[in-house]
Amino acid sequence: MKVIVAANCGFCPGVKSAISTAEEVLSGEHNVYSLGPIIHNRDVVERLAKSGLKTVDDIAEINSGTVLIRSHGAAPDSISKIKQKGLKIVDATCVLVKRVQQIARQLDQDGYEVVVMGDRNHPEVKAVVGCAKHVTIIADESDIDKLPKNGKLGIVCQTTQSPEYFSRMLAAISERGFRELKVINTLCKEAIKRQESAVELCKKVDIMFVLGGMESANTRKLAELCKKYNPETFHLQNWNECDKMALSGKTTAGVTAGASTPQWIIAEFVEKLKAF
Amino acid sequence: MKVIVAANCGFCPGVKSAISTAEEVLSGEHNVYSLGPIIHNRDVVERLAKSGLKTVDDIAEINSGTVLIRSHGAAPDSISKIKQKGLKIVDATCVLVKRVQQIARQLDQDGYEVVVMGDRNHPEVKAVVGCAKHVTIIADESDIDKLPKNGKLGIVCQTTQSPEYFSRMLAAISERGFRELKVINTLCKEAIKRQESAVELCKKVDIMFVLGGMESANTRKLAELCKKYNPETFHLQNWNECDKMALSGKTTAGVTAGASTPQWIIAEFVEKLKAF
Repeated sequence: MKVIVAANCGFCPGVKSAISTAEEVLSGEHNVYSLGPIIHNRDVVERLAKSGLKTVDDIAEINSGTVLIRSHGAAPDSISKIKQKGLKIVDATCVLVKRVQQIARQLDQDGYEVVVMGDRNHPEVKAVVGCAKHVTIIADESDIDKLPKNGKLGIVCQTTQSPEYFSRMLAAISERGFRELKVINTLCKEAIKRQESAVELCKKVDIMFVLGGMESANTRKLAELCKKYNPETFHLQNWNECDKMALSGKTTAGVTAGASTPQWIIAEFVEKLKAF
Repeated sequence: MKVIVAANCGFCPGVKSAISTAEEVLSGEHNVYSLGPIIHNRDVVERLAKSGLKTVDDIAEINSGTVLIRSHGAAPDSISKIKQKGLKIVDATCVLVKRVQQIARQLDQDGYEVVVMGDRNHPEVKAVVGCAKHVTIIADESDIDKLPKNGKLGIVCQTTQSPEYFSRMLAAISERGFRELKVINTLCKEAIKRQESAVELCKKVDIMFVLGGMESANTRKLAELCKKYNPETFHLQNWNECDKMALSGKTTAGVTAGASTPQWIIAEFVEKLKAF
């Protein structure tokens, strides 16, 4: 099989920074917790667990030690609860995610009704919700009716969404009617680069693989985009999940990976695929 | 012929105010000029001409007397020239058009690159251009490339455009890429009401008439919208222009009129159409 790897794929600076922060803390402390998976990649989370990182779902499960705030951030009330319990905080929130929170806070202070576009179940979006008095989440067109018709709206977007999604939601909001819109482009340029590389590549190959966690928003977006241009697109976590039957009759394969997918997962996949 | 008149049509408050301002000035003064037609309706302009209003294209043609600023406004440099010549100014600019100019000025002061969406040849749009250091006119999708890809854009729209146009242009701008957008809804609610009534009506009739000046932006927009839903739509200035052949075989006609079309034009048209 001829295998082409996307020009831009794999770890982004935000993920690299979160992992190195975790490794640094783990090298000096024993009681280290992450509130939810530090990044959306099972293999990486398992590797860090072996170094001692305990991933918990709720602050109630932590009684002492250090809490690592994961790359997707945490809502202000979670931070307050951690502080109230007297726990030490190490913040590994991606700087771009942090920026979305700060912008939401500022828009709220400036009298805008804050709107965040994105997946309501994603921790990044959930954390933004806590940053203003009232935040409306717009996941898709069906949410538009939740907005006032004559509002002064301050709009941000989940960092890992695509420019196409951002402008489609914006058009839907403006069609609904508004008094004023202030829209800050909070999309991650690294995510956009990965999207562009993936779309370009998937058009040229017989089969396309998108590697990354099932919960990873940016990986899911890559898969969604590739599927549009190449129906033979598969979102997998690693080589073990690959259905070898799908490869039959294919001569060229494309491989891309989300921002939370480590290089060794990509390398192993490419090597096995080439040998197939 | 059964004739139905649109629920909202004809003179808007801005046009009414411009005409009554003109009449008031003309009742007390002799030397009264309008820089371009006071409203985009030939019949009204001719009637005011009989009362003494002289319509000129250039300030150079005026040496003394009073200059009436028409409903669509005038660019700041035109106002300066009029003042420099020592002429008296009476401002009949529509308050909503004036608001667009003020917003453009404020956006410019706040560090935004000003963008106005609309017809580059319309006097309202031309006047806005003079209100900021640099203004980009976006008439349609082909103009989007004129914008920077990473700009901080302050956006207004010609008052007589439709919400559909406004959101379509906004989507095109956001798809192009931006750093920040501040969009103020400058659409005229009276124009929107006329658009909604016209679209609703044109769907129910065999033939649709849109009455108003050929230069009138809001009338042209009404005709454009109606044509989408009823290809048998005709934009006419008055009954004389009606091609009676087009009426053959039709049993129900709809009539609407732009914001600068006087009631007597509509009444005469409806009366003659009913009798046909």
